[in-house]
Amino acid sequence: MTTRIWTAALVVIGDEILSGRTQDKNVAQIAVWLNVQGIRLAEVRVVADRTEAIVEAVNILRARNDYLFTTGGIGPTHDDITVDAIAVALGVGVVHHPKALAVLERYYETRGGLTEARMRMARVPEGAELIENRLSGAPGIRIGNIFIMAGVPHITAGMLDALTGTLEGGQPVLSRTIGCWVAESEVADLLREAERAHEGVAIGSYPFFREGRVGANFVVRATEQALVDACVADITARLEAAGRTVVEGGI
Amino acid sequence: MTTRIWTAALVVIGDEILSGRTQDKNVAQIAVWLNVQGIRLAEVRVVADRTEAIVEAVNILRARNDYLFTTGGIGPTHDDITVDAIAVALGVGVVHHPKALAVLERYYETRGGLTEARMRMARVPEGAELIENRLSGAPGIRIGNIFIMAGVPHITAGMLDALTGTLEGGQPVLSRTIGCWVAESEVADLLREAERAHEGVAIGSYPFFREGRVGANFVVRATEQALVDACVADITARLEAAGRTVVEGGI
Repeated sequence: MTTRIWTAALVVIGDEILSGRTQDKNVAQIAVWLNVQGIRLAEVRVVADRTEAIVEAVNILRARNDYLFTTGGIGPTHDDITVDAIAVALGVGVVHHPKALAVLERYYETRGGLTEARMRMARVPEGAELIENRLSGAPGIRIGNIFIMAGVPHITAGMLDALTGTLEGGQPVLSRTIGCWVAESEVADLLREAERAHEGVAIGSYPFFREGRVGANFVVRATEQALVDACVADITARLEAAGRTVVEGGI
Repeated sequence: MTTRIWTAALVVIGDEILSGRTQDKNVAQIAVWLNVQGIRLAEVRVVADRTEAIVEAVNILRARNDYLFTTGGIGPTHDDITVDAIAVALGVGVVHHPKALAVLERYYETRGGLTEARMRMARVPEGAELIENRLSGAPGIRIGNIFIMAGVPHITAGMLDALTGTLEGGQPVLSRTIGCWVAESEVADLLREAERAHEGVAIGSYPFFREGRVGANFVVRATEQALVDACVADITARLEAAGRTVVEGGI
């Protein structure tokens, strides 16, 4: 029996990431959230605030993944072009969503009123639904398998919250981490053999240099807890046979 | 006169980024470093530790950019497949680089000797040169317009250091940031007009919510300092005319 694997891609939209001005935090938070939904983040692209760049990434990635997320470019200013670019990608028009207008009207009632610039945040590709934003006025947008999210990480977090449990997925990837004060080059063969001996398991090796010593953490991943545990037990036994001490949970 | 713009792309290779386990830091540091060299980071892709995913990204991005950087997957373990995948992308074989072997031999002389696993780190696509790594044994690799860097950020930093000043570029993008305690939706029109009035200038607007108040930073970018300064002066005048206080350097 093969278990269906559900995948998502993410397009991070923003010159500020590509210039190095802003450190992205959405990749990690969306990756972790997706895994809980039983969906694997399969690929990420960071593109500039340019229509053609967004269109290319969106059209390739939405076709080959179950879901496509985007972050960034949905505010009220001239550099916020995500909605227009995705409408181009889908070949649909852009409309003001009545519910988004109502939400923004209420939000700005005590904040100076709904100006034309603010109404921009109610623009959606034709046929879209809204994703609730409990933190600020502008909602996220869902159209087909595309989820258009904010760029500001804590607002994205609120939108993910609103989507929790609503997307069909498969089995989450389970993982356990063990650590060891050892140069990974000394245990490379051991890890390779352990991975070969345990089908359905992937072992990642992540070296570090700390307190003047080298070490590595090993992350064992599979969709079945029993597979993960058997592989961890095997690596632990092999490391201990080589005279090493294993730290559960990683170092 | 049109000034040639030099571009680079970056492929971040690693399941640990896509699983959310590790927060990437290489995008920002490589972006900032590239800009100093007069090269713009045009696009980034994060791909899994899978040969086909790496090959696809490398072949598309090296063809449409002046330079292509990769990070991750050059260690000694089974999940380090970057060198092999790039050799596949280029249609060349993989060889042990004699100078890399010598470097590793020296490095491991007092660290248990050069084992077979460690010799893996001397493997390069045929025809490659080395990029110096002053921090640990395994060098980076240059082949054609491709630069294969470490995944661990401080080792990547050392490799960038070794490359500083060696890549041809154009004019760096200059930028100035000003901040204002204002909802960006209130100044959207003003920013749009300012950008239109200053050709060759891009204005980014980055809202935030802090100390219970909303504000935004505006980043003005161009390759000529005079263009940047004129646009900043214009936005500042427009904001002050609207009764706003402008904070040089951003908030």
